[in-house]
Amino acid sequence: MVYEATSSAPVNIACIKYWGKRDTKLILPTNSSLSITLDQDHLRSTTTSRCDSSFEAGDRLWLNGKEEEIKEGGRLSVCIRELRAWRQEVEDKDANLPKLSSFPLRIASYNNFPTAAGLASSASGLAALVASLASLYSLPQSPSQLSIVARQGSGSACRSLFGGFVAWREGTDPAGSDSLAEEVAPREHWPDVHALICVVSDAKKGTSSTSGMQKTVETSTLLQERLKIVPGRMDAISKAIKDKDFESFAKITMADSNSFHAVCLDTAPPIFYLNDVSRAIIAVVEELNRAAGRILAAYTFDAGPNAVIYTLEKDMPVVLGAINKFFPTAEEFEDPFKTGVKALPEGYNAGVVREGGWEKGAVKGLIHTRIGDGPRKLSAEESLLNEAGVPKTLA
Amino acid sequence: MVYEATSSAPVNIACIKYWGKRDTKLILPTNSSLSITLDQDHLRSTTTSRCDSSFEAGDRLWLNGKEEEIKEGGRLSVCIRELRAWRQEVEDKDANLPKLSSFPLRIASYNNFPTAAGLASSASGLAALVASLASLYSLPQSPSQLSIVARQGSGSACRSLFGGFVAWREGTDPAGSDSLAEEVAPREHWPDVHALICVVSDAKKGTSSTSGMQKTVETSTLLQERLKIVPGRMDAISKAIKDKDFESFAKITMADSNSFHAVCLDTAPPIFYLNDVSRAIIAVVEELNRAAGRILAAYTFDAGPNAVIYTLEKDMPVVLGAINKFFPTAEEFEDPFKTGVKALPEGYNAGVVREGGWEKGAVKGLIHTRIGDGPRKLSAEESLLNEAGVPKTLA
Repeated sequence: MVYEATSSAPVNIACIKYWGKRDTKLILPTNSSLSITLDQDHLRSTTTSRCDSSFEAGDRLWLNGKEEEIKEGGRLSVCIRELRAWRQEVEDKDANLPKLSSFPLRIASYNNFPTAAGLASSASGLAALVASLASLYSLPQSPSQLSIVARQGSGSACRSLFGGFVAWREGTDPAGSDSLAEEVAPREHWPDVHALICVVSDAKKGTSSTSGMQKTVETSTLLQERLKIVPGRMDAISKAIKDKDFESFAKITMADSNSFHAVCLDTAPPIFYLNDVSRAIIAVVEELNRAAGRILAAYTFDAGPNAVIYTLEKDMPVVLGAINKFFPTAEEFEDPFKTGVKALPEGYNAGVVREGGWEKGAVKGLIHTRIGDGPRKLSAEESLLNEAGVPKTLA
Repeated sequence: MVYEATSSAPVNIACIKYWGKRDTKLILPTNSSLSITLDQDHLRSTTTSRCDSSFEAGDRLWLNGKEEEIKEGGRLSVCIRELRAWRQEVEDKDANLPKLSSFPLRIASYNNFPTAAGLASSASGLAALVASLASLYSLPQSPSQLSIVARQGSGSACRSLFGGFVAWREGTDPAGSDSLAEEVAPREHWPDVHALICVVSDAKKGTSSTSGMQKTVETSTLLQERLKIVPGRMDAISKAIKDKDFESFAKITMADSNSFHAVCLDTAPPIFYLNDVSRAIIAVVEELNRAAGRILAAYTFDAGPNAVIYTLEKDMPVVLGAINKFFPTAEEFEDPFKTGVKALPEGYNAGVVREGGWEKGAVKGLIHTRIGDGPRKLSAEESLLNEAGVPKTLA
């Protein structure tokens, strides 16, 4: 009997940003956040978890074919320990069940997008790990309960346990029992929300978000004000999502991205994630909205220079037209939706970016995706492990 | 009898930034600010004001040889009208005085630094105008009282009516009678404060400060918090200046520059003044302070990408060494102080800027100056006007 489960989990990109922990050990945030889950058809992490009493003692894990140490007390080990404890509870209630909680684990995880794409893979990766273990162990816990475990692996991973629009409630319990993810609306509620990821080259590696956010908590004088503003934004953006009010949704998304980067700048020493190309993308989107006379696109930036532009499917051609015009990419753009390109609206002021646009490759590549569903259970055929419990890519 | 006066006035660069007006007509700020006056031996505006009953009716003004219209109700006309009214008061008290207030004016102003240097010339220019008219009219008003007039011409001009360290008190009077400049300490108190201006190329013209600051007042959610923080910073930096405590002075200066640019970013649409080169200068200075184990330099940025680095005279060689190393300038650097260059401190991590440093000309040029005195009364030989009352440069 082979005890194994393979799951995939999505990337999520926040509209209301998570920046700052009130408890660094439990990963409890200083504010609630809200994200859109992106489509796993395009971007996903896949994880296979297997347990077997015949495995040599000790758990082992491979990430993209490379073995990673599961450090005692580290974030991976905390997640595995908690899920195993829940399995133990299940076994304690039913003596007929196999004692999977006592078997060594072999876990293989794989991201279908290159690390060089600059997309945080820890969220989708941790979510896939939690989803596959929960499936292997047949755990009765809800996605929100599982999100508490994923949160301890990598904060924003908790939001990747749901599809659609997802809130991570900061909670009040010092132990973190109510700091969890919840669905605000499923993808089916507003399926025409699309995203264009602009992968921006950066000559310099920026500050890691883990160390950066705590520097902000320690030194920013403006962060406290941001924390007072976020609850109102959470309510307002949830309402905008429920009403499918793209303009309000977009305004709040852009304002919160800018507010997040503002508190980064207000950190000592200051943290910069936006570079000149990021700034130019902001200028192009702002001008697009101005010239169109309505807000048809919203930019948002995480802890790096890459832009994510949210727009409705019907408006993607004009967004693609603008980005194409000013930022010729190094890599050829393969659009899974075969979206055409539309000319800029009349009255568009091309002077918002430097004359002649940017050199080829300032934006390395584009990824067109859309709102997506939550973790998926995959078939045994998609297992990443061979018979010996070692990644197939290594065999 | 020729009634004429020529004055020069200095540039000032704020350590606590002015950003936001509570009254746009009277130019009353949303917060107090504090600046260092730079040496007129290097950077100055010079203004000659002459009045003559034989001049054709109407005032005329030339800026750098080009005639500018004095718009009725405009800022220049407000300044001239207020100073003329004070002259009128003087004449009303002494019937023997010539009725200069009734004579048409001819005013010529000249900046000794190119507009392309990206230094705001409105502050020194307005201060020189006010100083020369006050001198022409033999006004009894103090520099602080004159600063109220200069403020209405161009907010930060009020600070250029003093040398040394200067505070612009926001005041509380809705009419602006207490929104004025005051000396915090004269240059002689701490004469070894030097400044290195790094003139940074920018492909794009940024938002004007006049429109930008009001956008921030209207849309930034973080500005209110900044306004609560500034009073404490004003007190702390004044104490640091009095104690000649460079480390505290530098920390507050850098924090306030970053806080100002943070509220710009928090504006809708966001305002960016710092570009990639500005960011790199920040990184170089922060690393210099870290590697030296003490804070020996402070950067500050106004509404543009140019850096002003404050340091003590003794530390300028290492600052120059760092800037020279990473930012080879397009223009040859002529140092009036013949300061040498010192190597980077041991343990300096050159990886804070992109590999190989920046291309020649990313920083166009450097200006080395220091703390300076207030407006100067110049001799008749330095008049900018010829006998006919027209700029000599036009003759």
